[in-house]
Amino acid sequence: MLTEKPVTVFLDELASSAPAPGGGSVAALSGALGAALVSMVCNLTLGKKKYANVQGDIEALLSQSEALRKELVELLEADVQVYTEVSKAMKMPRTTEEEKAARTAAMQKALKAATEVPMRVAEACVKVMDLCRPVAEKGNVNAVSDAGVAVLMAEAGLRSAALNVLINLAWIKDEAFVAENRAKLDALLEGKASMRDEIYDLVVEKL
Amino acid sequence: MLTEKPVTVFLDELASSAPAPGGGSVAALSGALGAALVSMVCNLTLGKKKYANVQGDIEALLSQSEALRKELVELLEADVQVYTEVSKAMKMPRTTEEEKAARTAAMQKALKAATEVPMRVAEACVKVMDLCRPVAEKGNVNAVSDAGVAVLMAEAGLRSAALNVLINLAWIKDEAFVAENRAKLDALLEGKASMRDEIYDLVVEKL
Repeated sequence: MLTEKPVTVFLDELASSAPAPGGGSVAALSGALGAALVSMVCNLTLGKKKYANVQGDIEALLSQSEALRKELVELLEADVQVYTEVSKAMKMPRTTEEEKAARTAAMQKALKAATEVPMRVAEACVKVMDLCRPVAEKGNVNAVSDAGVAVLMAEAGLRSAALNVLINLAWIKDEAFVAENRAKLDALLEGKASMRDEIYDLVVEKL
Repeated sequence: MLTEKPVTVFLDELASSAPAPGGGSVAALSGALGAALVSMVCNLTLGKKKYANVQGDIEALLSQSEALRKELVELLEADVQVYTEVSKAMKMPRTTEEEKAARTAAMQKALKAATEVPMRVAEACVKVMDLCRPVAEKGNVNAVSDAGVAVLMAEAGLRSAALNVLINLAWIKDEAFVAENRAKLDALLEGKASMRDEIYDLVVEKL
């Protein structure tokens, strides 16, 4: 498992010419880093007298951020798997017409799977972003910069995932699938850049 | 060393209430992920006939991205160390006037060191950003989405580092130090959000 390797080894494998990990894995990792930072702010708020009146809210936020962190780590591993399938399909023989048809069918199937994973990463990153404003507003003010970093990482994860959806869609022939996924992605991206900047400004004001 | 730990353990320690790692470490990691992705695009371009006329440019970009990746991993470790010093100083006794004065002096010294590290992270992230446009323009077009993810991670690292500079500056009493560092930070941030969006749009056009 890639996420069981040391951080430096992950970076080495990322920097190499090996097909995976790549930008898709980084999108999932970025979202997971954002979720972990939301959890950190929650953990620095729980049990603190000064924040007694928000303990229930913070517990609910922590439970969501931890579920999203787990999901994003799983999606990181899934991204490597689906990308490996695309690479395998690309290397299939294409001499005869039968081989060409089999390769195209395998490629199209693998590309659809490789689109679904970053789309789920994008969805999870949006959910992490939704936790950042409440945690910046209600969480331990000494850790407010961490809530700011959380939203930056979640939004970078969202847009990174979007690039990985788009690069796969460019090769997919099923026009209905492409249209549906483009619409879904546009809806996920809508307003998120301003949301990130608003939360960043809110954090800077509280510093 | 934190970066020798598995990715999942890094995330666990980040999510915990332990003082470090925190947002400062994530800023450095985000920059290192961006640098590693620049290297990946370079490695997928070197030795390819189609890109024969840019081999020299790509080699120069790779040498810069690898140096920045190394620097950012070192800064990640340095951030944990300087933050630990701030935590230690905060826990110093403050009953007598002498103790209070000693604690304040230790705090101010530790806060200045804790400001320098994210400032260096911010500088390195800007340098990573500078590599993203040439690598998106000249590198292997099949990996252009990775150049896009690189700029998103480097810019998120820059702004995350900025939040960590600002949270430390808020506690520093040396007004000249604060003014100088604020000016330096503003210069680093200037125009980088539009630069990120321009490179992102360039990547989307090439998908």
